Amino acid sequence: MKLFMLKNKLPNKIVTRLSLYYQILSKTTSSYISSQNIASHLGTNSAQVRKDISLFGQFGIPGKGYNVKKLYLNIEKILGIDKSWNVVIIGCGNLGSALLKYSGFKEQRFNIIAGFDIDKNKIGKVINNRKIYHIDELKNFVKKNVVDIAAITVPSSSAKEIIKYVADCGIKGILNFSATQIKLPKCITLKFDLTIEFIRLACMLANSKLTQ
Amino acid sequence: MKLFMLKNKLPNKIVTRLSLYYQILSKTTSSYISSQNIASHLGTNSAQVRKDISLFGQFGIPGKGYNVKKLYLNIEKILGIDKSWNVVIIGCGNLGSALLKYSGFKEQRFNIIAGFDIDKNKIGKVINNRKIYHIDELKNFVKKNVVDIAAITVPSSSAKEIIKYVADCGIKGILNFSATQIKLPKCITLKFDLTIEFIRLACMLANSKLTQ
Repeated sequence: MKLFMLKNKLPNKIVTRLSLYYQILSKTTSSYISSQNIASHLGTNSAQVRKDISLFGQFGIPGKGYNVKKLYLNIEKILGIDKSWNVVIIGCGNLGSALLKYSGFKEQRFNIIAGFDIDKNKIGKVINNRKIYHIDELKNFVKKNVVDIAAITVPSSSAKEIIKYVADCGIKGILNFSATQIKLPKCITLKFDLTIEFIRLACMLANSKLTQ
Repeated sequence: MKLFMLKNKLPNKIVTRLSLYYQILSKTTSSYISSQNIASHLGTNSAQVRKDISLFGQFGIPGKGYNVKKLYLNIEKILGIDKSWNVVIIGCGNLGSALLKYSGFKEQRFNIIAGFDIDKNKIGKVINNRKIYHIDELKNFVKKNVVDIAAITVPSSSAKEIIKYVADCGIKGILNFSATQIKLPKCITLKFDLTIEFIRLACMLANSKLTQ
């Protein structure tokens, strides 16, 4: 199949751009989107967007743009992320509990399957059908369940140690919500920065007519 | 001054690209970064990055790259976001409380100054030096304090109504953490999507050698 043949040869630049298009599509509520509209989010030109997308087939309708859902599902296939991703939450404090309670991830194929903590008062509790286990049980849990991603929501003081332990347990994807920065050879760590959307909004406000 | 002369004429495309560079710099922990490195995050080419940045002066050192802090501060000036942004949290549940407890925003000029809720048990409480007021007090609070941004962390069922009220109170920037989508003419609303970083990590995992 054309898609799979191409997948293994995809240059990093195209993977990056497709994942940016994918993120824009995931936030789009209308049924159709133009290449100009996608390009405007990235400060790039629409010809680049059309060129990238046309590599994989004909998704646009002249005068209407791309069918958002169709393009979204196709990019998902091209990127190889059209599967379910099992997520565990490490640290069930304020942010960790908020993640455990959140159900919106499921629409996007991210299933939160359990929480882990060291606090005796939390262990055994069930939040939104997700049980909280002692962190020492993680190694065993990973042996019995597929775990793709760990979201780290422990205090920064213990984040480094915990992230190393999580990687040792064999989890390959780590989304680090703590202020600590750490890179490990055995896994991909990505630092989640809550300020990013605040920055984006500030840029929009500063460069809008509303505040001038 | 050159910067200010240019600011009012900045095309949208450059504003967008600069704000993307700015976000990359805000996550960079090394002292120097190359145009290639910035470009790789965006799937663009390094010539474009160098061209954009050179519009505003000479920030790069041959063989070393850009001084991250210097470039960051300069882009901040160019974008007009080199000021403090006062933020209020509307809805002090799990996510709202996590935001109130978070101190990392201050480094980035975002000051959370108060929380608002309707729950009698929460009103009057002080979290991390930030007081929680009744939502009915917001209008009065906005008259007495500069409030640039409201982060909406109320349940989706009441989000639409609350966002309209917040806009009526005169707040121009709204960061909407709820699942509800709403656009208002008087303000800029931006939907915060917690899944975005999960998607980014999944793309990296799917296209890495770790999981192949």
